[in-house]
Amino acid sequence: MSKPKKTSIQENEGVSISEITNPEAIERFKSRRNKTIDVDDLISSLLNKNISALSRAITIVESEHPKHTAQASAITKACLPKANKSIRIGITGVPGVGKSTFIEAFGHHLSRQGKRIAVLAIDPSSSITKGSILGDKTRMEDLVKNKNVFIRPSASGNSLGGVARKTRESIVLCEAAGFDVVIIETVGVGQSETTVHSMVDFFLLLKLPGAGDELQGIKRGIIEMADAIAINKADGDNLKKAKVAQTDFKNALHLYPNNKSEWQPQVSLCSALNKVGIDAIWQQVLDYVQITSANHYFNEKRHEQNKYWLIQTIESQLKADFFNKPEIKAALKEQLQLLDLNKTTPFAAAEYLLKLKH
Amino acid sequence: MSKPKKTSIQENEGVSISEITNPEAIERFKSRRNKTIDVDDLISSLLNKNISALSRAITIVESEHPKHTAQASAITKACLPKANKSIRIGITGVPGVGKSTFIEAFGHHLSRQGKRIAVLAIDPSSSITKGSILGDKTRMEDLVKNKNVFIRPSASGNSLGGVARKTRESIVLCEAAGFDVVIIETVGVGQSETTVHSMVDFFLLLKLPGAGDELQGIKRGIIEMADAIAINKADGDNLKKAKVAQTDFKNALHLYPNNKSEWQPQVSLCSALNKVGIDAIWQQVLDYVQITSANHYFNEKRHEQNKYWLIQTIESQLKADFFNKPEIKAALKEQLQLLDLNKTTPFAAAEYLLKLKH
Repeated sequence: MSKPKKTSIQENEGVSISEITNPEAIERFKSRRNKTIDVDDLISSLLNKNISALSRAITIVESEHPKHTAQASAITKACLPKANKSIRIGITGVPGVGKSTFIEAFGHHLSRQGKRIAVLAIDPSSSITKGSILGDKTRMEDLVKNKNVFIRPSASGNSLGGVARKTRESIVLCEAAGFDVVIIETVGVGQSETTVHSMVDFFLLLKLPGAGDELQGIKRGIIEMADAIAINKADGDNLKKAKVAQTDFKNALHLYPNNKSEWQPQVSLCSALNKVGIDAIWQQVLDYVQITSANHYFNEKRHEQNKYWLIQTIESQLKADFFNKPEIKAALKEQLQLLDLNKTTPFAAAEYLLKLKH
Repeated sequence: MSKPKKTSIQENEGVSISEITNPEAIERFKSRRNKTIDVDDLISSLLNKNISALSRAITIVESEHPKHTAQASAITKACLPKANKSIRIGITGVPGVGKSTFIEAFGHHLSRQGKRIAVLAIDPSSSITKGSILGDKTRMEDLVKNKNVFIRPSASGNSLGGVARKTRESIVLCEAAGFDVVIIETVGVGQSETTVHSMVDFFLLLKLPGAGDELQGIKRGIIEMADAIAINKADGDNLKKAKVAQTDFKNALHLYPNNKSEWQPQVSLCSALNKVGIDAIWQQVLDYVQITSANHYFNEKRHEQNKYWLIQTIESQLKADFFNKPEIKAALKEQLQLLDLNKTTPFAAAEYLLKLKH
């Protein structure tokens, strides 16, 4: 409003401002500015299908550094009108099922049809091990040389939610860069399949041939999410076992009809190593897209996914804001002890904690 | 701190105070005081196993009226040290499966063994229809006359969460009133089974005899929650079909072993009408309690449930606080439209909405 008077508070602020204006800080600031890339150039290269521009753009969008916030926002904004045009395929399966070999074979098959393919990964373990399921690019050494293919190692992050967010934004960028198919790979760990399922159009579960009791021990809920199950390594001595597994899974999938999509999940055999059965799986994807486009489920699902991620992001932020407060953390611990001793009810404890918020 | 000066704000407060002290308001207040019951007497009657005291106490705890808050809190506090000693059994099944007849037969069987049984209900539809699955007490007309049995119609409420909360508190009161077994009944609608499952020790699913394709169309996740499945109406012409269903369910349950409890879910046949197979189901409950008490799963599960309800209550309150704000409602609608038009991403929209909060 009016010109502020000098008070002791503002004197203190003055001290911190003078710190920022010290010569060293100015140098740091200048060197950062010099490194600043021209975002407009980057965006126009990306939209012209330049892969290294895409790669740099993803790095900026993934960055948690505040200096990238405005750039990331400009990139996403420019990409959005060009996005949404790919087929998004989620691929999951336990370690050893042959995901890399499958994606190699699948990617080459699509490339031969003139398609451009982006492969992203969601690795819930990366935040702990600092590893990455696609970090070792040699795992797909042929595919990585294919000019129609873009392979991006898993985003890192402190939480699956953070990694998921980055992957979702990367999908938008890949689509704006003209990729026809975006593959999201994940290992069957924790909640990662659910996360991938909620951001793809078609969810493919890779399985190994097994005995008649194949269904035992399968993680709850994964089978019912699958639009297709492919039993990989269905070759040689495995073929008989693979066929038994196929029957088991077909029966299991019949338990979970999805009336809305009008799609009957498929179970097929393949050998990624011998490149057998790969074309049939791509045909399943095309059939799925055709059926669900005709009945509008395809777009409805994308809208639902957008809404899900919007609500999900808000809710996890609200929870984090609350439960990360030091005073709440301490009080929660105390209330949980009282609960264990039957000295309070969950609802009385919740009310007590919620009152601390205000 | 120091004696406050009279300011215009306090003058305003003065006006509202004088409103409260008008003669009419004083009369209203007095008549309320006269109706106030002696909570100490009520509690001591309840702890002496007086059923009408229990019933009145539940009414107070269920009440949403602010005048009952302190009384409800006193009642719950007094009951907590005496609670936690019953076996809590959840019973669910689609309409027509014979839940009332089953609970009648089950209740009489327990009563003959000298047990006292409380039957509560969670009815997710009650907030819409204002009906209640146990409202029509004639459905269990024999059981209601049994002096060892307390039947309480479904709590009403605006949300399943609210109804669940009231039921949880009612369990505490029933236990303090010396009931050995608390049965929570629900119909297979919406999320009600999950809700009941998260507040009982033993979850029983009632099914009808069916063809070999019995498993088709079963709501996802219900079977894997069951500690036991009883195929009711397994009599006369139904017996053969019931046996087929039994085999199907046994196979299905083997898909979902619960290693922690060391309990293998059971599938049995019964005819509640003919009182056949009821004793075997009660024996399953006793076996379950014995096994899970020995390996401490029984108490661990109760602690987990307490924690779940504590966190759950806080989270739903945080969400309600946020999403019920009129400015958030309006902005959310707007952002969802932008999302549908691909003009924003879920994360950008979430950030925008979260900023409005502050």
